[in-house]
Amino acid sequence: MELWFTEEHTPNVRFSLKVQAHLFSGESEHQKVDVIDTVEFGKTLLLDGLIMCSEKEEHTYHEMMVHVPMTVFPDAKRVLVIGGGDGGTVRELTRYKTIEKIDMVEIDQLVVEVSRKYLPTMSCALDDPRVTLYFRDGIEFVKEKEAAYDLILVDSTDPIGPGEGLFTKAFYADCYKALTEHGILINQNESPFYEIYRQNMMKAAEKTREIFELSRVYTFYIGIYPSSLWSFGFSSKGLDPVLDMKPDRFEALNLDMHYYNTELHAGAFMLPTYVKKLLEE
Amino acid sequence: MELWFTEEHTPNVRFSLKVQAHLFSGESEHQKVDVIDTVEFGKTLLLDGLIMCSEKEEHTYHEMMVHVPMTVFPDAKRVLVIGGGDGGTVRELTRYKTIEKIDMVEIDQLVVEVSRKYLPTMSCALDDPRVTLYFRDGIEFVKEKEAAYDLILVDSTDPIGPGEGLFTKAFYADCYKALTEHGILINQNESPFYEIYRQNMMKAAEKTREIFELSRVYTFYIGIYPSSLWSFGFSSKGLDPVLDMKPDRFEALNLDMHYYNTELHAGAFMLPTYVKKLLEE
Repeated sequence: MELWFTEEHTPNVRFSLKVQAHLFSGESEHQKVDVIDTVEFGKTLLLDGLIMCSEKEEHTYHEMMVHVPMTVFPDAKRVLVIGGGDGGTVRELTRYKTIEKIDMVEIDQLVVEVSRKYLPTMSCALDDPRVTLYFRDGIEFVKEKEAAYDLILVDSTDPIGPGEGLFTKAFYADCYKALTEHGILINQNESPFYEIYRQNMMKAAEKTREIFELSRVYTFYIGIYPSSLWSFGFSSKGLDPVLDMKPDRFEALNLDMHYYNTELHAGAFMLPTYVKKLLEE
Repeated sequence: MELWFTEEHTPNVRFSLKVQAHLFSGESEHQKVDVIDTVEFGKTLLLDGLIMCSEKEEHTYHEMMVHVPMTVFPDAKRVLVIGGGDGGTVRELTRYKTIEKIDMVEIDQLVVEVSRKYLPTMSCALDDPRVTLYFRDGIEFVKEKEAAYDLILVDSTDPIGPGEGLFTKAFYADCYKALTEHGILINQNESPFYEIYRQNMMKAAEKTREIFELSRVYTFYIGIYPSSLWSFGFSSKGLDPVLDMKPDRFEALNLDMHYYNTELHAGAFMLPTYVKKLLEE
């Protein structure tokens, strides 16, 4: 018997993975949570039937979310992670000895429980003494904060279901308020490739541009995501993601990386022409 | 009734496209040739059942093959295209008024005939007076040439079937001999992502490095290809793909581009860490 998992990237494109075992299936009050073990990508987390991360590639996503802002603002000490229940973003953050405090606000406790059990290579740093977990709505949490974080990382799902409110202008404005003077917001910004994701990318980029002094988009490559071309937003109160980066500070840490490096950091902001045009519209 | 075309990217990963019509199916002495009309990617050429190019994305591939070397060596006048039966590479070349002579050597006349009929947006420049078509084996053709071309573009299939000989060290050595003093070779270099393509990329990069004074790899993003992360090799007798590029010369032409721009040109050579490591091995 062969087991295959199929995700519809669009109604006209299907991506199928051979599955060795369906390790977990459960449902919280927020969403359906599954873990499958795939031959090509290793253990893979699904939320509402959509692929979130896989063992083979999660480093790419989490490195690009954490090390891009940390290389621009290496003195960041207090960090807020919204979402990120698999723990990969927190794991990358804990590699910086200089970070003093990491608050992670995940709406769905089941995601963290499942990740602790089935995805230990991602969740391994959630017990770091600098980490505090809040099982709450990130939107409400950030509303209460003012100049509290040097870095806010929105490690969210797509703007449907629990992730929807994390793509609103009001939320980005609350993040601005919650950031310190040199603070940086990184947000999951969908993909420029297929139409529906493209619309979400353009809308999120427009909203952050209206609130922050500086807001740019960078791309990276995730083979298991729809189209494989993905983007994050980089928004700040003035720090430029390329001109202000401190490659020497990053290099001095001598961290072993899978995907990120300081050359690629700059390259990720050099966008294909059609993506530039979409963002200018 | 729904029609779907499925390509196995690996034995464990399948990519499926909804098809509106199967426009052509035929077989030459070299390979099977099909054209399908897909909902998401438009008309798509298949050789031996593998996707070669689609209307939606072909500009990315052809722009990255042509404009990267042309921005480094804008005075190139004589160009050899090996393969490239769909015509997209030749079309991009003919946009330069300064190019005087384009020889295209395609082993399979059927590919050109099919492209002329079903893919006119790609094949539209094959009748340019500067273009000479040779329906011959590119390996034999290039053996006979010495210091004859400023640019050689190997627009080939995978290293199985008719494309196999275009991935050998002997062929790259013949290309070296066929190039002029400042000549550049661009070769289709597979993908760093899935294991089998990765092996081919590493081998091709090693072979060109042994022959040319300078040989680098650059990547770009094609949503319809296995893994979507693809690479070309840039080999030269000394010209550096980034340090020697002349962005002003390119900008002065004011060409309308889908994917390429001179910022992205530099960014494409900034590789993810795991790709850099593969190429150092």
